[in-house]
Amino acid sequence: MDGAVFRGDGIAAWRKIADLLEAEIVGGMLAPGTQLPTEAALAARFGVNRHTVRRALGELAGKGLVRTAQGRGTFVELSRLAYPIGERTRFSQNMAQEGREAGGIVLEAVEIEADPRLAGLLDIAPGSPVLRLLTLRSADDVPIAFGSSYFPLPRFAGFAEAYRRLGAVTPALAACGVDDYKRQATRVGARFASPEEAARLDIAVGRPLLTVESVNVDLDGIPIQATFGLFAADRTEIVLQS
Amino acid sequence: MDGAVFRGDGIAAWRKIADLLEAEIVGGMLAPGTQLPTEAALAARFGVNRHTVRRALGELAGKGLVRTAQGRGTFVELSRLAYPIGERTRFSQNMAQEGREAGGIVLEAVEIEADPRLAGLLDIAPGSPVLRLLTLRSADDVPIAFGSSYFPLPRFAGFAEAYRRLGAVTPALAACGVDDYKRQATRVGARFASPEEAARLDIAVGRPLLTVESVNVDLDGIPIQATFGLFAADRTEIVLQS
Repeated sequence: MDGAVFRGDGIAAWRKIADLLEAEIVGGMLAPGTQLPTEAALAARFGVNRHTVRRALGELAGKGLVRTAQGRGTFVELSRLAYPIGERTRFSQNMAQEGREAGGIVLEAVEIEADPRLAGLLDIAPGSPVLRLLTLRSADDVPIAFGSSYFPLPRFAGFAEAYRRLGAVTPALAACGVDDYKRQATRVGARFASPEEAARLDIAVGRPLLTVESVNVDLDGIPIQATFGLFAADRTEIVLQS
Repeated sequence: MDGAVFRGDGIAAWRKIADLLEAEIVGGMLAPGTQLPTEAALAARFGVNRHTVRRALGELAGKGLVRTAQGRGTFVELSRLAYPIGERTRFSQNMAQEGREAGGIVLEAVEIEADPRLAGLLDIAPGSPVLRLLTLRSADDVPIAFGSSYFPLPRFAGFAEAYRRLGAVTPALAACGVDDYKRQATRVGARFASPEEAARLDIAVGRPLLTVESVNVDLDGIPIQATFGLFAADRTEIVLQS
């Protein structure tokens, strides 16, 4: 065991353990997705008590290097996915470029009336009917983005069914007669995950989220989609293409 | 006092107080920058104890609507600044567009050797000398962005002095012979503020930050500046211009 190293020179044991595990993660000895040994096993390895191990793991979780899944153990976080946003942002294409398989499922599809803010984004009259789609998108089955998209009705009445069948936005828009589209505007912010958001994205409550608000327009410049997406910041970085 | 409303119908009192204060903030009755009444005064207004008030304020702080400055009280957070990033991103110009006065101070200027990652961004040999500038930029004297910029040496030997004198990047680059420049690449992520970062940005430890890594190039396409900036997410939103 490495225990001797972790006591007696004034630097807290949890800090040294955290630094060593961080070096193993950054150095690739502990690969992304790997399950860490149990707290008991780490405590035995380092010759410390479980409280000290827990503090070290808390430090690593705070840096987004590991995540603890309730009842399933602690895992090395996946390396951060670079998500390009530009005039032609396509989720599936972005995932393919990173060598990952894109997935998208519809959690909910309902018709609502556009509130004034949404109506402004979609350039329609407040109160107009829109399709609200709650979706969860993934890379290699790891949740990446959770959020709501809004499509004007009746133009996109068939969108939810097409998205469910085709699993991606671009072909589902094509099924609604939109051959091509462009990103008109994007706003990026950050905040903490709520319990529901954390559960959807399989992260801990209170981890940071990147909030991405965007509007797509068809080639005539008419808004076809407004999206409020939440990306797990521990797993994603937005790359702006200018 | 409003006390009667805040007890007895099953919804927690702290939640109702938080909702009411949120409505007052969002509705503009409590303007950005306003100091809230003391906990004791709020407790008297709502007919609850200070613990309940503190929980309500904690909820608002968690949403980024207020911030508590140690020993100075609780303030309504400034409305979120929209920070455009595109090919021609200029901090001072962005602030002027929002009707705010831009400020920039140099906290530290040192010569270092470029590590491999930085050398890659600046397209120079690892170990080459670069100027590292630690800066704090503000809008109407509220800290907005804290971070490090790196400039190749000897080309930008006079930059720190010029920036100190002129207070903005664009004229300081002009003083070093760069008449115009473009943003080549930007990456945006999110994480929590460390104690030092929080102190610099005048936010609470652990509030979310937007991390913005960018490279500027001159009109010949030669990298002139790499910046790692931290924006307080409670005060800023990045707007991508595509």
